Amino acid sequence: MALVVQKFGGTSVADAERMREVAHHVSRTVRRGDQVVLVVSAMGKETDELLRLAGEVSVVHPGREMDMLITAGERKAMALVCMALHHIGIDSESFTGSQAGFLTDNNHQNAKILDVRPSRVQASLDAGRVPVIGGSQGVSIDNDVTFLGRGGSDTTAVAIAHALSADTCELYTDVTGVFTTDPRVVPTARRMHNVSFDELLEMTATGCPKPAMRSVEYARTHGVRLHVRSAFTWQEGTWVDEEVSNMEQAIVSAVTHDMAEAKMTLAGVPDRPGVAAKVFRALADLEVNVDMIVQNVSTQGVTDISFTVPHNDLPRAMEHTQLLADELGAGGVTADDSIARVSVIGAGMRSNPGVAATMFETLANCGVNIQMISTSAIRVSCVVDGDEVENAVRALHDVFGLAED
Amino acid sequence: MALVVQKFGGTSVADAERMREVAHHVSRTVRRGDQVVLVVSAMGKETDELLRLAGEVSVVHPGREMDMLITAGERKAMALVCMALHHIGIDSESFTGSQAGFLTDNNHQNAKILDVRPSRVQASLDAGRVPVIGGSQGVSIDNDVTFLGRGGSDTTAVAIAHALSADTCELYTDVTGVFTTDPRVVPTARRMHNVSFDELLEMTATGCPKPAMRSVEYARTHGVRLHVRSAFTWQEGTWVDEEVSNMEQAIVSAVTHDMAEAKMTLAGVPDRPGVAAKVFRALADLEVNVDMIVQNVSTQGVTDISFTVPHNDLPRAMEHTQLLADELGAGGVTADDSIARVSVIGAGMRSNPGVAATMFETLANCGVNIQMISTSAIRVSCVVDGDEVENAVRALHDVFGLAED
Repeated sequence: MALVVQKFGGTSVADAERMREVAHHVSRTVRRGDQVVLVVSAMGKETDELLRLAGEVSVVHPGREMDMLITAGERKAMALVCMALHHIGIDSESFTGSQAGFLTDNNHQNAKILDVRPSRVQASLDAGRVPVIGGSQGVSIDNDVTFLGRGGSDTTAVAIAHALSADTCELYTDVTGVFTTDPRVVPTARRMHNVSFDELLEMTATGCPKPAMRSVEYARTHGVRLHVRSAFTWQEGTWVDEEVSNMEQAIVSAVTHDMAEAKMTLAGVPDRPGVAAKVFRALADLEVNVDMIVQNVSTQGVTDISFTVPHNDLPRAMEHTQLLADELGAGGVTADDSIARVSVIGAGMRSNPGVAATMFETLANCGVNIQMISTSAIRVSCVVDGDEVENAVRALHDVFGLAED
Repeated sequence: MALVVQKFGGTSVADAERMREVAHHVSRTVRRGDQVVLVVSAMGKETDELLRLAGEVSVVHPGREMDMLITAGERKAMALVCMALHHIGIDSESFTGSQAGFLTDNNHQNAKILDVRPSRVQASLDAGRVPVIGGSQGVSIDNDVTFLGRGGSDTTAVAIAHALSADTCELYTDVTGVFTTDPRVVPTARRMHNVSFDELLEMTATGCPKPAMRSVEYARTHGVRLHVRSAFTWQEGTWVDEEVSNMEQAIVSAVTHDMAEAKMTLAGVPDRPGVAAKVFRALADLEVNVDMIVQNVSTQGVTDISFTVPHNDLPRAMEHTQLLADELGAGGVTADDSIARVSVIGAGMRSNPGVAATMFETLANCGVNIQMISTSAIRVSCVVDGDEVENAVRALHDVFGLAED
């Protein structure tokens, strides 16, 4: 008897019919002899609707109240899914994040899990029931309701899977698995049968939308085996696991891209110790997520520092970096929000040093200019013009032989 | 500085505009120098919508899950109202029933309050904030979310007013107060300036829809002064208080009616001790709320017992009473669901014994046949044909001189 955590996203529980489908799927798993813990997100566009209401009511949105509001969505969904299970004779119980034992910090709207104490969920399983947990919720050390953030249901699923030592954590979503690249850009993109935690982490960090990056980090840290699959076709999806050495391992596994970042350049910065620290500490204090950072070789005692930040954070990042530039006597700050990033990812590139060179040649051949470069052991990313990124993705997917046969 | 509990019903928080109105009203009270505790119901028709969804998803509705589902409604409303307060610069915090300290039994969908431990609400007040409490919710002794039932927000308001020793509990609703009778039936019905707990209790028990009877009972037991008023006009409404001796006290204060009950008659019952006990114990065990009970004088060792039950409960009440009739060797059971009840209520009738006689004469004069009669110290109720009840209400309102001048 295996213990399986099954997480269903918003589109998978969007209406009564979809909820009954979920219930039937759970019943098939239970009939197979396995134990199931369900995690559900809010129905369809419910979270957006709640945010819209908050916008209508007020321009001030205290985090504590936003979390109280937003978590109403998962609460509705989990109680209704529970009833759908009872409807077909499966005994089940719903649990809020608090009841399921998710203790978090009090960083509202983006709370971090401090501990999972799943005694009520375990008792429910022991009593032969199917526990249904509201995704993305917890209770803070101050005893307030907290929300883990958008996409937090994936993290809830992985965390409860780890806390209960589940055999698998199945993430049901509206795509059939993880693809070698975005199928909307490259129609021949191939669904991957398996991918390592490291590769998926690099992929989600560079534009692969599902599963949520944070849940992949959690799964990687705690070794929780994931299965990313469709809630609509029920066919097998993509397994995420420790890396297995495989003779046939492709050098490059996937090509990702994203358009959510803007590039900032701090020009003519005095090249002395502590300058970079000052710049990025200030941005960290503003909770701006700086991603790629490139510093040029210094000439005549000054250098340029370029980095990317999310579009949303650009205005405040600009404002503060401008102040800092004046303080440091730097030349100035510029921003470009029409950039995109294209990345190739693959555990195989560790022992195949030519990947970066191939990538740069390929981009040059299609006339794509590279603005910034950054690399990790299993990833090479280039910042390019936003208009050129889809061409770049197609060319790279092709040159690394990732297409469906 | 007075402490005022203000409760707003569903229509009063139906949309963003209404919520902002509520916030402005609270701010006027705060500027006046008073402390406010808010209690809110779910927005508009939200509870009905949640019930509809539950019906769509399943035919089985476990109480625990229904309560989890339904309480999502007040949670949304309280967080949004909180934000509306912040929007105009009033610091506030929302509290679920559990956070506000409402400990209940575990009778889901209709939980009873066992204790109110308002330490978090008190701390919020002490910190100069406006606490906003989700109505009709609590946490059970088993640590599950509970719902106090429809109309339970009134009870939440009265209970928190008592627990905090508030000066007044204001119940804001979509009517401007308590009326001498239903203004839809009698256009000259008069808004009462004040009414005693006892009178209001009898009125709500016999068809006056607001406030919820249970909250009046709670207020009466604990001496919580109520003010029933409109959320739309903000003008003074009806004060509910201990009875004050008043030379001008009308003999009859109000005429009420309701159509929600059906009449059952158990005919030809052996007239021996214990029979009535057996009948009504069985109905109590089914949780059927039996209201009026009339037993005729026995002739030839058999008697008839008539009583009223809510329409909803009629099918199961019939089924079980039929079985019991066979067991007791009774003549048979009949039901009539087209009846109505009309009542006259007034503390003044205690010392004016002619009220019942006047009532019966008035009904006779308009050709209304009386099917059953029951009385209390301050009420006389008659069961009549449903088609005739509005005529009866108009005639009685008139004869007891209750109309607006």
